[in-house]
Amino acid sequence: MTTKIIVFEKPKLKNPIFIEGLPGVGNVGRVAAGYLVEELKAKKFAELISSHFMPIAVIPQGSQAELIKAEFFYWKSKSKNQSDLIIMIGDSQSADPEGHYEIVEEILKFLKKFNVKEIFALGGLSIGVPTEKPKVVGAVNDVSLEKKYKKYNIIFDTSQRVGSIVGAAGLFVGLAKYYNIPATCLLGETSGMPFLPDPKSAEAILKILSEILNLKLDISKLQEKIKEMKEFMKRVEAMQSQLLQPQAPPTEKEKLTYIG
Amino acid sequence: MTTKIIVFEKPKLKNPIFIEGLPGVGNVGRVAAGYLVEELKAKKFAELISSHFMPIAVIPQGSQAELIKAEFFYWKSKSKNQSDLIIMIGDSQSADPEGHYEIVEEILKFLKKFNVKEIFALGGLSIGVPTEKPKVVGAVNDVSLEKKYKKYNIIFDTSQRVGSIVGAAGLFVGLAKYYNIPATCLLGETSGMPFLPDPKSAEAILKILSEILNLKLDISKLQEKIKEMKEFMKRVEAMQSQLLQPQAPPTEKEKLTYIG
Amino acid sequence: MTTKIIVFEKPKLKNPIFIEGLPGVGNVGRVAAGYLVEELKAKKFAELISSHFMPIAVIPQGSQAELIKAEFFYWKSKSKNQSDLIIMIGDSQSADPEGHYEIVEEILKFLKKFNVKEIFALGGLSIGVPTEKPKVVGAVNDVSLEKKYKKYNIIFDTSQRVGSIVGAAGLFVGLAKYYNIPATCLLGETSGMPFLPDPKSAEAILKILSEILNLKLDISKLQEKIKEMKEFMKRVEAMQSQLLQPQAPPTEKEKLTYIG
Amino acid sequence: MTTKIIVFEKPKLKNPIFIEGLPGVGNVGRVAAGYLVEELKAKKFAELISSHFMPIAVIPQGSQAELIKAEFFYWKSKSKNQSDLIIMIGDSQSADPEGHYEIVEEILKFLKKFNVKEIFALGGLSIGVPTEKPKVVGAVNDVSLEKKYKKYNIIFDTSQRVGSIVGAAGLFVGLAKYYNIPATCLLGETSGMPFLPDPKSAEAILKILSEILNLKLDISKLQEKIKEMKEFMKRVEAMQSQLLQPQAPPTEKEKLTYIG
Repeated sequence: MTTKIIVFEKPKLKNPIFIEGLPGVGNVGRVAAGYLVEELKAKKFAELISSHFMPIAVIPQGSQAELIKAEFFYWKSKSKNQSDLIIMIGDSQSADPEGHYEIVEEILKFLKKFNVKEIFALGGLSIGVPTEKPKVVGAVNDVSLEKKYKKYNIIFDTSQRVGSIVGAAGLFVGLAKYYNIPATCLLGETSGMPFLPDPKSAEAILKILSEILNLKLDISKLQEKIKEMKEFMKRVEAMQSQLLQPQAPPTEKEKLTYIG
Repeated sequence: MTTKIIVFEKPKLKNPIFIEGLPGVGNVGRVAAGYLVEELKAKKFAELISSHFMPIAVIPQGSQAELIKAEFFYWKSKSKNQSDLIIMIGDSQSADPEGHYEIVEEILKFLKKFNVKEIFALGGLSIGVPTEKPKVVGAVNDVSLEKKYKKYNIIFDTSQRVGSIVGAAGLFVGLAKYYNIPATCLLGETSGMPFLPDPKSAEAILKILSEILNLKLDISKLQEKIKEMKEFMKRVEAMQSQLLQPQAPPTEKEKLTYIG
Repeated sequence: MTTKIIVFEKPKLKNPIFIEGLPGVGNVGRVAAGYLVEELKAKKFAELISSHFMPIAVIPQGSQAELIKAEFFYWKSKSKNQSDLIIMIGDSQSADPEGHYEIVEEILKFLKKFNVKEIFALGGLSIGVPTEKPKVVGAVNDVSLEKKYKKYNIIFDTSQRVGSIVGAAGLFVGLAKYYNIPATCLLGETSGMPFLPDPKSAEAILKILSEILNLKLDISKLQEKIKEMKEFMKRVEAMQSQLLQPQAPPTEKEKLTYIG
Repeated sequence: MTTKIIVFEKPKLKNPIFIEGLPGVGNVGRVAAGYLVEELKAKKFAELISSHFMPIAVIPQGSQAELIKAEFFYWKSKSKNQSDLIIMIGDSQSADPEGHYEIVEEILKFLKKFNVKEIFALGGLSIGVPTEKPKVVGAVNDVSLEKKYKKYNIIFDTSQRVGSIVGAAGLFVGLAKYYNIPATCLLGETSGMPFLPDPKSAEAILKILSEILNLKLDISKLQEKIKEMKEFMKRVEAMQSQLLQPQAPPTEKEKLTYIG
């Protein structure tokens, strides 16, 4: 099956900016992008499913089961100094190394159809210790972006702080180059717990992003909204309970143990 | 090779209902669907083979070797309140995570050709302890299905009981949405042994399913029939003996040890 | 890259019989088929390479490096009661489970072009203890084959002795059914050492096969010929030395350790 | 996504010779080819990216993130006894076994367009102990190459010293045969540390290669140049830090732990 994007609506957008928020360290990117979707009341228009996600259906509430997926939302600009936006949030990154490439490339091809003019990939940067004032570190796929954004509170001596960026956020910045799309990765410092959401780090990213995008964003409700992100958290919990089952070195036998 | 469906006969069916029963926890789904095939004298018309199954041929009896496979049967309705049926039973689920997606999607494409109007995916729900009166828990891909089936003895506060459904049963419900096919997963409670068949749980599912489908099914012979399912059990045993070989952490060397 | 068959010569053959001998338990199939190639002076006409073989080049002698591969030979019948033959021998089976399916299916497609009328897949059957008089156990993909060959010294209560046949030999018998090619698997009993050649078991198979094929085969030189199979043995040794390197549970790091 | 070669410039080359240098034991091949690029001031004209590389972006300096990649450079001959050259250096080899085949084959297809007349694959040969005067061992895909190059200081009793060549270097020699391209693998003896660059071994290869190619190469600056290869070393370090994280037997959970 590989990777599929199912489109429910074809919005007319003018050179939109794309914002990516998938789960990761501190769930920083996912939480920040999810908040943006909520606050802007962005509208869902497409879903991405992939055989590179885990083969499970999750039941966030009631009896309705859904595949692991990523969702695309759009938002139309309200004033001249704003841009149309496409925001993607998701339940998971690829479960295997190769899948990251495929998923990110399918998304880039999809974005090309909308003439996306710029990409922001949001994520967390594990610093090992809790921090009260998380900084935001940036990585770009073109030096001109560093110049463009250095006036915002982004740290760009990235090479000193970050050797490499693993997974979707890194690949968006790396692959977008071959699609001629300027891309910036914004990494919020966080202590480093993979699935524990870090609102402070997400807040730091949102502050910078709303400045860049000229959005009047009320970030005060972030803490509260995270509590409301029940559906997503249920999914993550469901996946975690799956993943945290006691696992000896994997044997063929274990691969065949399933519910269903 | 990926996944192939080999068709022996092209039955003319009128908006059939599809019932899936692959091995899993307590073999609940496989046993229930297998009993349905036997009791209805459903006719085999296709086989599915896949490189996502283990690369082995099994010899259930005599000298005849067969690949690991799934089999499709059809049954034509006898009265107006019944529907034509396609029933699938199989020896195995995918041996690798990605294969689940591919196999289920190939089946959905195949079912679309028959204008399948609804799907029931049968499976077991591990509850950790033996139960005398197993309940049946339902998951759906559309809320309307919960309304339609809540009069039957199905528990629909699924989110509280089941975080996620792994493998084929979950993917059928999840993927069918994108093929516009209503799908319900019926999970019979069982203690949780992967390959030990649980007739009580299968019976609970069959009772509900025969009511929904208006089938007059004699379930009294289920225990007896399970004993007769020698061929399938031999296959499962053959696979188990393969899988249960002492396995240290897998090394490249082990991957190359084979009979043949 | 997947799997490729490179053809050097297009022999005109009349409904040939195909004989397969890849490495496995006791190397029985490989040794038997290799001897057949030598004794019949069969002519090489094609090679099979595959990304499912290990990514290594072997240097059996001198300085010439070659990929892991399988080789196809043909032999034209000398009398009316014989059939033309295609014999395949190889250095390795697939290194991953899915590859077995792909490799065997590519070969079956290739054989279809030659109107192959029957397949014999040769292999070893591990019985755990050394045996002076190894028996030959048969598995078929059609009951009529058991009837046809039961007059030869083949044991056909296979289900009692063999639960399943792993790898290429099993898949040839299982997959050939879907290509309408009668296929028989001949398994020579052997103690069970994977890469130690067992000439006695190979001899038992060759005796039966030469009777079936009406070949006047001098089997007395088998032991001697095995010593001459230097090139193949070197390859196997090279692969073994690769595989037998001390391997802790595999880590990503190890996957990246290579010569070259 | 699999493997892609992105071309920035289409140089007109006359039957060029291709030189490959990917990381490996002692980084011998990568260092030697990298030095050649620097000294000849070869010009970059293409990049190769692949989903078989690790899914990470590396930030060698400043804030600019780049995918793991290989790079193609060309150099035009300055005199009649020289040949045009295509030199490839890279950050990594394939992270999975199958990827080696795909990547090498994509490169061979690419080289065919330039009528590449010969291939030199450079690598290290682990001998377990440090050596002051590393020898260069050769492997070829055609015996005529041994005759052609035995006058240079290359050891060709390769079979005695090298059972098999793993990864890209081995596959280049092995696969090039099917593309009718003569290919020679030059392996410089080295102690065997995978990522520690061994300039002495690289020097031994460069001496021979510059003689064969009639290049007047100043090898005295090699030690110094290695220090300057900061960007590449940073990438390798970034990858190593990724790979050397404490790794218990890999569990599904770990596969999902990422920065980003």
